[in-house]
Amino acid sequence: MRTVYSEDHRQHDANMELIEGKLVKAHEMPRRADIVLDRVRHQKLGEIVTPQRFGLAPILRVHDEGFVTFLRDAWNDWLKSGRDFDALPHVWPVPGLTVPGRKRGSRISKSIDGKMGHYAIDAGTPITAGTWTAITGAVDVAMTGQKLVASGERAVFALCRPPGHHAGSDFYGGYCFFNNAAIAAQAFLDAGAKRVAILDVDYHHGNGTQEIFYSRDDVLTISLHSDPDQEFPYYLGYADEIGQGAGEGYHLNLPLPWGTAWASYEAALQQAMARIRQYGPDVLVVSLGLDTFEHDPISRFKLTHDDYLRMGEVIAKADLPTLFVFEGGYAVEALGVNTVNVLSGFDQAA
Amino acid sequence: MRTVYSEDHRQHDANMELIEGKLVKAHEMPRRADIVLDRVRHQKLGEIVTPQRFGLAPILRVHDEGFVTFLRDAWNDWLKSGRDFDALPHVWPVPGLTVPGRKRGSRISKSIDGKMGHYAIDAGTPITAGTWTAITGAVDVAMTGQKLVASGERAVFALCRPPGHHAGSDFYGGYCFFNNAAIAAQAFLDAGAKRVAILDVDYHHGNGTQEIFYSRDDVLTISLHSDPDQEFPYYLGYADEIGQGAGEGYHLNLPLPWGTAWASYEAALQQAMARIRQYGPDVLVVSLGLDTFEHDPISRFKLTHDDYLRMGEVIAKADLPTLFVFEGGYAVEALGVNTVNVLSGFDQAA
Repeated sequence: MRTVYSEDHRQHDANMELIEGKLVKAHEMPRRADIVLDRVRHQKLGEIVTPQRFGLAPILRVHDEGFVTFLRDAWNDWLKSGRDFDALPHVWPVPGLTVPGRKRGSRISKSIDGKMGHYAIDAGTPITAGTWTAITGAVDVAMTGQKLVASGERAVFALCRPPGHHAGSDFYGGYCFFNNAAIAAQAFLDAGAKRVAILDVDYHHGNGTQEIFYSRDDVLTISLHSDPDQEFPYYLGYADEIGQGAGEGYHLNLPLPWGTAWASYEAALQQAMARIRQYGPDVLVVSLGLDTFEHDPISRFKLTHDDYLRMGEVIAKADLPTLFVFEGGYAVEALGVNTVNVLSGFDQAA
Repeated sequence: MRTVYSEDHRQHDANMELIEGKLVKAHEMPRRADIVLDRVRHQKLGEIVTPQRFGLAPILRVHDEGFVTFLRDAWNDWLKSGRDFDALPHVWPVPGLTVPGRKRGSRISKSIDGKMGHYAIDAGTPITAGTWTAITGAVDVAMTGQKLVASGERAVFALCRPPGHHAGSDFYGGYCFFNNAAIAAQAFLDAGAKRVAILDVDYHHGNGTQEIFYSRDDVLTISLHSDPDQEFPYYLGYADEIGQGAGEGYHLNLPLPWGTAWASYEAALQQAMARIRQYGPDVLVVSLGLDTFEHDPISRFKLTHDDYLRMGEVIAKADLPTLFVFEGGYAVEALGVNTVNVLSGFDQAA
């Protein structure tokens, strides 16, 4: 399996995030990608490919133009406000803090702090000097992977960083800015695919992916994740969110409790694969988060190194052209082994 | 003028708040009330009164029961989650992170972090071990002041801490938990007043007060504040928010730009007083924030010590029974002088 990788990710190197009441060193760091790349090389998984440039066009197929413009300008707006440290919002337009009945986005404060709160879902996703370079670079990585799969490769690994699955059509958060997997899925459709399935195995609910495709039946979205009654993002990811309108029945949430180990995880994964088989997509996009690992510092599942080999084997059984898109995973030193185990497990079973 | 004061406020003594991208020492601190009380004594403003206890009944006239229960239990829920430092939320149910069309509150995550984000508007309002004692004590202070005014006193100063005007029917933030001024206004109505006016002269928009009375014509709400295109809370406080339904025309926002000094501030204040005269209320509640001061560390207006004497005089001209409720102001060492200047200016003109 080939891996697409760009050095651009290194430009997004945040200092601090607010999480669970504390400001701590950002968990989402450049070393995450480095250690995965090292393992890809060490295990001889396959060629490392440098991405092409795609510009904003594929991003704008999925994300709101105002949101894209905001992200492009945010760091400069922040500098203009007299600050040169990482940008975090501190107040949000929750329902009580908006005019009743007025449409989202009908007015956005001219203040950079107001804009950030408008477009962010959390206080844990800093914008830095290099964020724009890194997030557009991550999209290039995903899009290059998409082109390779669309051109006939059985499977490709897009080593995107920062991750994307928490980012929605017009919001960022959970360390995510552009939804790399959703952009790739849309690109498959634009290239002629009739149906795409996105399988999200990150520990956290793929709320951005859910939001983007919630009313559509041309992308089946499935997320296995920690129960939002216990875990971030808390407000979405419940089992009764099944899509709406044309999309009703085309979203599947499989929330699992803290402490979930491989046996029950595999049962949920098999349920997801059965739904994918039933849907019959032309292609599969996997949002590959590794924070289900037993030693992840911010997560509470119990998957082991070997379980990731099994995960790859199960996914391979769908017998679909497959694009793996890198998402979360914060047990950094174990991230290379776990990621490449999924990909090797897939390759061996494919 | 008598001052109502309780030692309960001291129990809310937060460590850190997230503001403008930084976690800093909380600006809203016990010394704020101490220095005002010292000045009240030094200037012999009048007797210091200890509050009666009112329990939850007056709070529940204004605030949602689920919200009140949340605040009562929040610290214990936080402790149970294994943390013993100040509680701050880190993710919010903004529109993209909620199921489209589903009513607010129809599902609230069982997680304390999810609950906090549901009920909070910002990451700057820590919940501490003593918060519940302090916020119910602050309501007792406001309610005791209300009873004194309802019993015939010309004016009373309720030295509430923490402040209240950013707190809405079911949300907290901006250092506020229960809306002391709104609770007192409702109590005036419940005691027989037909019309109450609330004048909010805090530097920040009184978004909670606006939200609570937005659809009602029995409480006229007016807020003079820093333009939300420049300043917290960013999402409300614009001039075109005038109330809705029965409340249409009974809310007035007077946003003013950074750098506003007394001349243009007084013009806006006179406009507010004219609207109050036209409304003809039985009683006036003043949300008295002093963060319009030229040296306030988080604000950008230019009022001076003497301007606060003038402010008191202007307010006195309404010739109404008046309850002053203490709100913001973070130039702590100047807070005694500025607060008591308003009250003395009022007394001398009344």
